[in-house]
Amino acid sequence: VTLIKRTAHDGVRMLSLANGVTNSITPALVSELNEVLSELENDSSCTGVVLTSESEKFFSIGFDLPSLFHQSPEGFLDFYRSFNRAALCLFTLPVPTLCAIPGHATAGGCILATMCDYRYIAEGRKFIGLNEIKLGVAVPYLADSALRLICGDRIATEMFYNGEFLDPAKAKEVGLVDAVLPSEELIPKALEKVASIGSYYSKAFRAIKANRIGVVRDLYANNRTHDEDTFLDLWFDEKARKGLAEAIKKF
Amino acid sequence: VTLIKRTAHDGVRMLSLANGVTNSITPALVSELNEVLSELENDSSCTGVVLTSESEKFFSIGFDLPSLFHQSPEGFLDFYRSFNRAALCLFTLPVPTLCAIPGHATAGGCILATMCDYRYIAEGRKFIGLNEIKLGVAVPYLADSALRLICGDRIATEMFYNGEFLDPAKAKEVGLVDAVLPSEELIPKALEKVASIGSYYSKAFRAIKANRIGVVRDLYANNRTHDEDTFLDLWFDEKARKGLAEAIKKF
Amino acid sequence: VTLIKRTAHDGVRMLSLANGVTNSITPALVSELNEVLSELENDSSCTGVVLTSESEKFFSIGFDLPSLFHQSPEGFLDFYRSFNRAALCLFTLPVPTLCAIPGHATAGGCILATMCDYRYIAEGRKFIGLNEIKLGVAVPYLADSALRLICGDRIATEMFYNGEFLDPAKAKEVGLVDAVLPSEELIPKALEKVASIGSYYSKAFRAIKANRIGVVRDLYANNRTHDEDTFLDLWFDEKARKGLAEAIKKF
Repeated sequence: VTLIKRTAHDGVRMLSLANGVTNSITPALVSELNEVLSELENDSSCTGVVLTSESEKFFSIGFDLPSLFHQSPEGFLDFYRSFNRAALCLFTLPVPTLCAIPGHATAGGCILATMCDYRYIAEGRKFIGLNEIKLGVAVPYLADSALRLICGDRIATEMFYNGEFLDPAKAKEVGLVDAVLPSEELIPKALEKVASIGSYYSKAFRAIKANRIGVVRDLYANNRTHDEDTFLDLWFDEKARKGLAEAIKKF
Repeated sequence: VTLIKRTAHDGVRMLSLANGVTNSITPALVSELNEVLSELENDSSCTGVVLTSESEKFFSIGFDLPSLFHQSPEGFLDFYRSFNRAALCLFTLPVPTLCAIPGHATAGGCILATMCDYRYIAEGRKFIGLNEIKLGVAVPYLADSALRLICGDRIATEMFYNGEFLDPAKAKEVGLVDAVLPSEELIPKALEKVASIGSYYSKAFRAIKANRIGVVRDLYANNRTHDEDTFLDLWFDEKARKGLAEAIKKF
Repeated sequence: VTLIKRTAHDGVRMLSLANGVTNSITPALVSELNEVLSELENDSSCTGVVLTSESEKFFSIGFDLPSLFHQSPEGFLDFYRSFNRAALCLFTLPVPTLCAIPGHATAGGCILATMCDYRYIAEGRKFIGLNEIKLGVAVPYLADSALRLICGDRIATEMFYNGEFLDPAKAKEVGLVDAVLPSEELIPKALEKVASIGSYYSKAFRAIKANRIGVVRDLYANNRTHDEDTFLDLWFDEKARKGLAEAIKKF
């Protein structure tokens, strides 16, 4: 089974999430994401990455709550570590990365988008954001730090504290996305942008991107263990379980 | 004597500075602030805090220069440590906090406002800002770092280097306040905002806020001793004393 | 030979790059810059610095590629260290600093501007920015961190990844410069701004500026050796040499 469709456009690799309509994030999807990102990290012919989805309805709805809810602490910790490993690998990938968002990008879906250098979203009724506070769980530290880097404290804080989703216009206004495009232009413009930056000398780009991601990478390294403890503690918290159970009904 | 009036609005606690018209920051006020914040830190029924003032003229004019000017180095160091302890406790309080500013918030008054998650200010001729440079003293490190977090380097630098106060419209424009409201709406809207965020699961909020405040808290921990040395050195500096003496005349 | 013209305007010192039309950055220019900045650092009569250029065409075109291209690794490392020492000295100078930019400020020229507290640019067809990615070399870490501090991640990333120059209007829009002025007002306004801040107590200013520059100074200290390795590795890289050779043709 392939949950991530891969295509090559000259040096630019497009990764398209293909896990049904919602692209919910399962252990299998994360495992495949880690595999493909590790390959790309060491593929000198890769000059850039566009992350998108086959589904036009959901880029990704986030963690697959119905199945993850029933994981044991050991199983969920494995998943959480694997998810953050994939996120970090995407964040630090030494080529330009852009998330082309055709549909909703919520919770873990928004996190994946936040790990890319750029975000383009399709026009229309799409929602993007992190509603962890509404479910009663924590925001992963790496995602929190990356979104603060991109949007600044006031905007990130308002997003995390309220848990509201943003529509494309609002997401553009606050800097969460870089462009709002007609849906037929989403992929062409995304490929064009990444190809343009990817045309520069890869070794110079790698050095320049290392400066961009260094502070957040180091903060995360120092906080990883604490983050895992905090996230798991809340995930298995009795009251949070009720919020998760409610959310599962709408899945 | 109670210098801080406390009222409860369901889970939201309102702390209202009640130290005369100017709400100047005295050792007694700071001591009471530390006491009430320590209580709230450990009060599981508290879901949020609104900090405001009884006086509509001054939220707070800042340090009580006339009395603090005559403190011994030991006495002033005690006060300065106590003030920063209160500020840090407010900054890290694990519930949503909002400063509702009915009147001027200058120097130490602006610092207290900066320690909250949000700031709302009443319309009209109100001034907010840090004029330490004009007095010839230093800006406390914690306050400096928090304002840089909120407003970014260019705006914070301009405020610190020039020492000019901002009116509500300008404060909104640069991100120092989140809303400018008719004075009769100030408290209702403040309570509503904090109650809204406070309605989420407190343990999840605590985890999310920990991500927000971590970097500044750690920077301050590393710089606290140096900050105390610098602040005291300038406070008792001969030339700064002249600036303070001038400022005392206008108190 | 004097490559930097110095004039005094009361306490404000104006340093005017005078290395021909382009003000290319040579070992001799950097050496003189280090000398004059070291003097100013210890000159208690200096209340502020305006950095500008005699040439109205170029504030500075950046590194003097034609001569630096032929340096040995040892010679180039000496130059690179000396350049960063000057940049750091300018960044941390304990008086207010402003770069008054009469003409193009590209690559290393933009870096020098970024080391000042403020940047004013003359109206007209002037270009400012960092095109290192187009040449195939790295962006020095100190410059990268300072520009991120000033402009934030999204704007800095776009500048570094694309290597495009900005015109004055765009530079103002993104916060890279603080004012765009008719050329006859550039120096008077620059002197006025610095003199205004320089009129405050120098010891208080020094303490306040230390808060501004501390985080970047510490990041740079931790990354200096890695930065030197990275920059030299690329500078002498075979492919980067081709980019540099192309750029030299246009010098």
